[in-house]
Amino acid sequence: MGKYAIGVDFGTLSGRALLVDLESGAEAASAAYDYPHGVMDEALPGGARLGRAWALQDPQDYLDVLAHTIPAVLREAGVAREEVVGVGTDFTACTMLPVKADGTPLCFLPEYKNRPHAYVKLWKHHAAQDKADRLNQTAQERGEPWLKYYGGKTSSEWAIPKLWQLLEEDEALYRAMDRWIEASDWIVWQLCGREVRSSCAAGYKALYRRQSGYPSPEFFRALDPRLEHVVDEKLSRRLAPLGGCAGFLTEKAARLTGLAPGTPVAVGGVDAHACVPAAGIDGPGRLLAIMGTSTCHMVMSREELPVPGICGVAQDGILPGFFGYEAGQACVGDHFAWFLQNCLPAAYSEAAKAQGKNLHQYLREKAQGQRPGESGLLALDWWNGNRSVLSDGGLTGLLLGMTLQTKPEDIYRALIEATAYGTRLIVENYRSHGVPVEEFIASGGIARKDPMTMQIYADVLNMPVKAASSAQGPALGSAIFASVAAGSARGGWDDLYQAIRALGSRVDAVYRPIPEHTAVYGRLFSEYLTLHDYFGRGGNDVMKRLHLQG
Amino acid sequence: MGKYAIGVDFGTLSGRALLVDLESGAEAASAAYDYPHGVMDEALPGGARLGRAWALQDPQDYLDVLAHTIPAVLREAGVAREEVVGVGTDFTACTMLPVKADGTPLCFLPEYKNRPHAYVKLWKHHAAQDKADRLNQTAQERGEPWLKYYGGKTSSEWAIPKLWQLLEEDEALYRAMDRWIEASDWIVWQLCGREVRSSCAAGYKALYRRQSGYPSPEFFRALDPRLEHVVDEKLSRRLAPLGGCAGFLTEKAARLTGLAPGTPVAVGGVDAHACVPAAGIDGPGRLLAIMGTSTCHMVMSREELPVPGICGVAQDGILPGFFGYEAGQACVGDHFAWFLQNCLPAAYSEAAKAQGKNLHQYLREKAQGQRPGESGLLALDWWNGNRSVLSDGGLTGLLLGMTLQTKPEDIYRALIEATAYGTRLIVENYRSHGVPVEEFIASGGIARKDPMTMQIYADVLNMPVKAASSAQGPALGSAIFASVAAGSARGGWDDLYQAIRALGSRVDAVYRPIPEHTAVYGRLFSEYLTLHDYFGRGGNDVMKRLHLQG
Repeated sequence: MGKYAIGVDFGTLSGRALLVDLESGAEAASAAYDYPHGVMDEALPGGARLGRAWALQDPQDYLDVLAHTIPAVLREAGVAREEVVGVGTDFTACTMLPVKADGTPLCFLPEYKNRPHAYVKLWKHHAAQDKADRLNQTAQERGEPWLKYYGGKTSSEWAIPKLWQLLEEDEALYRAMDRWIEASDWIVWQLCGREVRSSCAAGYKALYRRQSGYPSPEFFRALDPRLEHVVDEKLSRRLAPLGGCAGFLTEKAARLTGLAPGTPVAVGGVDAHACVPAAGIDGPGRLLAIMGTSTCHMVMSREELPVPGICGVAQDGILPGFFGYEAGQACVGDHFAWFLQNCLPAAYSEAAKAQGKNLHQYLREKAQGQRPGESGLLALDWWNGNRSVLSDGGLTGLLLGMTLQTKPEDIYRALIEATAYGTRLIVENYRSHGVPVEEFIASGGIARKDPMTMQIYADVLNMPVKAASSAQGPALGSAIFASVAAGSARGGWDDLYQAIRALGSRVDAVYRPIPEHTAVYGRLFSEYLTLHDYFGRGGNDVMKRLHLQG
Repeated sequence: MGKYAIGVDFGTLSGRALLVDLESGAEAASAAYDYPHGVMDEALPGGARLGRAWALQDPQDYLDVLAHTIPAVLREAGVAREEVVGVGTDFTACTMLPVKADGTPLCFLPEYKNRPHAYVKLWKHHAAQDKADRLNQTAQERGEPWLKYYGGKTSSEWAIPKLWQLLEEDEALYRAMDRWIEASDWIVWQLCGREVRSSCAAGYKALYRRQSGYPSPEFFRALDPRLEHVVDEKLSRRLAPLGGCAGFLTEKAARLTGLAPGTPVAVGGVDAHACVPAAGIDGPGRLLAIMGTSTCHMVMSREELPVPGICGVAQDGILPGFFGYEAGQACVGDHFAWFLQNCLPAAYSEAAKAQGKNLHQYLREKAQGQRPGESGLLALDWWNGNRSVLSDGGLTGLLLGMTLQTKPEDIYRALIEATAYGTRLIVENYRSHGVPVEEFIASGGIARKDPMTMQIYADVLNMPVKAASSAQGPALGSAIFASVAAGSARGGWDDLYQAIRALGSRVDAVYRPIPEHTAVYGRLFSEYLTLHDYFGRGGNDVMKRLHLQG
């Protein structure tokens, strides 16, 4: 009988399960399932219109992922349910939903199904920016000690601004809600029947500090008197560390997934963080950039230092024993997808089709022969706001340098370059505040599939970029955590670092900077910085004023 | 026997002839012919590559226009060649070509046909910006008195920078060239067999002032010693006023056109200027905006005043008896065409086709329901540089405010609005320097065909916009000049103002500003101004630095 662990990764548009053979470290099978409701950003299925910058999901889609993908990987690999020693999950974050005391999402209840606030607020729901602004201002005025560990500014994407928006816009729903919970913790609840919240998500997204707990009731009261006791009323003070066992699969969840009742379930993880052990990273100085719809930049350090503009630093937040730092770019793959959907002319779509190429591949072939700077274009990669280092969801995109000779591939390449400049700024920001970055490892779809983009990153960063080989970074990390939740008695590991060495993936390709390119990109990066500061640090707040005109 | 005049208008992509019945004022027939070579901006037909910002034409295309369109209008209207009492022409400007002493274009000679500089440099050839910069600097340093009448800065589009580029990059060709001539004067030469240059084009585009002539040899020597005697060596001091007769149709031209030998030929005009009499304008204060691939803004005044950033002011330059002012935007219809060609997704092209709509119509239907400011986008309309009021061909486009929700129609509308802001700035610039603008009349394709754009202009300008009814503005103006070249003895007029009253077109539609829109656009215009000055007046010269990186 074999020993296997399953990791399930819940992304922005789909979920995927990965079955890992604990003896060989091989990825035995994987299966993906697209969310039937996708991202709801214009209206609910029932017709209710959503405001600008909303992004919702239906939690039924997450259950459907479990029901489709877990049986699929068992079937594909010919593995019996008894051979699965543990299951782990990870999720996009901060992705929050309101539920009843028994875990039922409010949107499952007929009386709330046409209420937008009853649904999951996806990480990229940006409609609570005014709340984040007020929260930041209040924290600054009160000199809250935790603020500096969130880069000096917290994000509209996080748990409290989203909750506060719900309270202000639908107070009845707020009262009807018993718990306000990360989707990552909710899915664990569905699996093991217990509410076990991860200290990782709480640390990065809900202002929880291991040393001092949540912000004080006085702080919450200063935001809004109705929030004074929000932690006890809607959140939870019982938090479990990453790498632990949350509980065991219920009968109901066993029926849903086809796994055996009693299978150990790992504490829920954040998708990006789960990639760190998956990439084989087990210590400080090695930055992992997960490049998907957005990019997350994680690095560990032995010291806790305030770094402006990061998403946060949390003790044991990524791996036990280190301070885990997280920064992010809110719009990377989403950026390129927006371009394909909204800007790619018919002639290009038709030519790609005729040549049997996917659109990204076709565009890359047109763009990859360009010299750096050849198009004369420069972009600010803020189509989805700016996460690091400005922490400002109210910023918007900019493209500059167009002429009548500008071609679609020029714009496409400029968007890629803009995301690379944003990454360089994040790396420089870490370094200049005392967090070493000695190695740059990329994982995610772009890292594996897009050598042109990886070379641009190496040239812009002026350091080698290493691409991790697993196609299933987060799911592999969740399987690693599952194997630790199972423990050695069941065929897993008791020590996380042993599991990482056994199962973590290896580097697949190394992209080295080309000196002629780095010189040009050095100059373009300094132009990027000037525009970044002019539009992002108060030189001209036109982007925000424009979005108030409509 | 009837009395008819023919006007032939040479545009950027095609030429068109208009046959006008002088008795009724009716437009009896028109015919267009697309230039077979179009605009050459990447390579010559023989393969020679062109540099960035080049734009050439083949003068054979202009002769082909005469050969196709004039016989076509005679045939269509059933008019005999003897019934045509005069022919007039107008052209894009400044559009220059090098010719031999007999008028043969150098590019017609086999030894030069693969030399890019042997071809016509179209108005939008922008590769001589460095020459324009040096010319402006030299004129400023020397305190040249004429500079202020060209808005304080002359354009890279004009005759001397283009000529200077030719000299520097292909001196052998410069020496082989006997004349450097406006295409408008060259076509008149082909018709009547005599080199008769118009004082209008020379006044606006070649630094010629009626009171003082061309700049001095000392000035030209300061530019480049080889240019000291350029006026006598390559240009001409014999200039004929608009409204005059240049000569009579040669036998050869009669065979080409099917008209009678000896038919009077009017002095050549500039396309935009010819629209002024065509729109029925016969005095000061009424601004005419010709909205085509680019926009030209003309207005007359009784006073000669220096206005910064205009293209120029010339005595009798548009109509005799007034000072004619011209300003311009280098990228209007071209802007929207660029968008359709490079940015419109396949889904839109297919939907438009399925609904039997042209792409502009389809996009307008999607964009016209938007409230001003709704998209949150703002653009600087500099895809083809900036003519007025910055006179800087080195500037490039900017688009700001994009989010992942931004749709193609949002961008399309933002580009339209940007051209409207540019127009408002030109109108305000005229007014603040003492040139009254009491009425805004638009002609050209956009004015007749695009009510959404006209309404946006009215809302942005906060004044009524009147659309002129003739579909053939420049050609009608040329026919008016043809009727005056013919004179009353042949059935035309001796006085231009009589001809204007008899043949000028009427206003077709009036678009009135909507107060709720003007309020929003007032705020957006002030945002436009801030960005305009930041990127266009030295706050951040990133656009120019970027185009030096490639």
